[in-house]
Amino acid sequence: MNLLLLEDADFVGGERVRLSGRRLKHLHEVHRAETGDRLRVGHLGGLMGEGRLIALDAEHAELHVSLDQPPPAKLPLTLILALPRPKMLKRVLQTVSAMGVARLVLVNSYRVEKSFWQTPFLEAEAIREQLILGLEQARDTVLPEVSIEKRFKPFVEDRLPALAAGTLGLTGHPGDYPACPRAVEQPVTLAIGPEGGWIPYEVELLREAAGLQPVQLGERILRVETAVPALLARLF
Amino acid sequence: MNLLLLEDADFVGGERVRLSGRRLKHLHEVHRAETGDRLRVGHLGGLMGEGRLIALDAEHAELHVSLDQPPPAKLPLTLILALPRPKMLKRVLQTVSAMGVARLVLVNSYRVEKSFWQTPFLEAEAIREQLILGLEQARDTVLPEVSIEKRFKPFVEDRLPALAAGTLGLTGHPGDYPACPRAVEQPVTLAIGPEGGWIPYEVELLREAAGLQPVQLGERILRVETAVPALLARLF
Repeated sequence: MNLLLLEDADFVGGERVRLSGRRLKHLHEVHRAETGDRLRVGHLGGLMGEGRLIALDAEHAELHVSLDQPPPAKLPLTLILALPRPKMLKRVLQTVSAMGVARLVLVNSYRVEKSFWQTPFLEAEAIREQLILGLEQARDTVLPEVSIEKRFKPFVEDRLPALAAGTLGLTGHPGDYPACPRAVEQPVTLAIGPEGGWIPYEVELLREAAGLQPVQLGERILRVETAVPALLARLF
Repeated sequence: MNLLLLEDADFVGGERVRLSGRRLKHLHEVHRAETGDRLRVGHLGGLMGEGRLIALDAEHAELHVSLDQPPPAKLPLTLILALPRPKMLKRVLQTVSAMGVARLVLVNSYRVEKSFWQTPFLEAEAIREQLILGLEQARDTVLPEVSIEKRFKPFVEDRLPALAAGTLGLTGHPGDYPACPRAVEQPVTLAIGPEGGWIPYEVELLREAAGLQPVQLGERILRVETAVPALLARLF
């Protein structure tokens, strides 16, 4: 963790926080922290800055924090992602959060296995846990907004048009399409399919109902967890 | 697997192959293949094309193959990568292979934990296994060249200058450096550090001995498995 992320409940005074649990363990085992050490800290949803460790034992850590820097800007991106398999979902959530995606929509698709929707990793608390790990990795304090859409057609027809309005709408899909644009200046709505890709009906509906144009990233088929950072790094 | 990758030993005639083991299992369990099915195939190190399943049972599969297409071009890239932790190494090898990196050098760095060098995943056969998975994913037949350099300084001083000669030499490193260039036209040598990054001495030696200029990818700190596809997608 490259940033010690603090939540409201950690504050025991205006500039004083008290930690236990996972973050305390990390301070001991990974940072091998000692009283007096200075660490990068951030307030979830708020500012970042420096914390000074004023007390540390097996039960608790106390820090005096000084928060004066804004978090990095979010990518102006709504990512529409066909639900990946559970193990990949965890890593993709961390990546999405670390790379600064503003909004993530996990959506069904014909090639998403039905069993994927049963995973406990889709529970709100489990999603939040992975997003927090991504923020700690990348040094950010602002969680992406995540929503879940179990039905593709009503989402794309009824809600995606408003989400995508005024943005550059793109569907990542291998095939005879224009190359994914580079270094765009405007906000983007990007749809990335499941393993095996979107089916033609889905590509068409994304285009017709919500204006998302198919773009490709070359002839190599990438896993979702590789395609996500590759497409994001190319777009922004 | 998006490509059934065939090795010399699989061929029982000029256009006839016989498979067992992992690939047979995959044909049964994932493809649910049946006699007569047509599959994308490739010959390791050679051409790609189509295979027709002419026999299939619990013990073997036989295919008639027709190979007439070249594999996708490699990225003109030598990637110098500080050895990642073993679990991440496996995934990064797959990514490197899937994205078409021509040459990979796994190198030591001050912040690489010594224990990482003990992993069985560094054995030649284990590396090859992950690279093959990457080729099968991306539909490629040509393995990247992989070499292992356990001592940073002699590698950078004595061998890297020749590897990097005539290429655009870059070190990915967070900090007050120019942004990583986009869509370059020439071959690239790119050094990516370990978790925690290169130390200043290493960044300097890469620059002084081998001409690799530090470049950054924004203020967010990415995991190696995210930074690799992000940097590659931006460069090429």
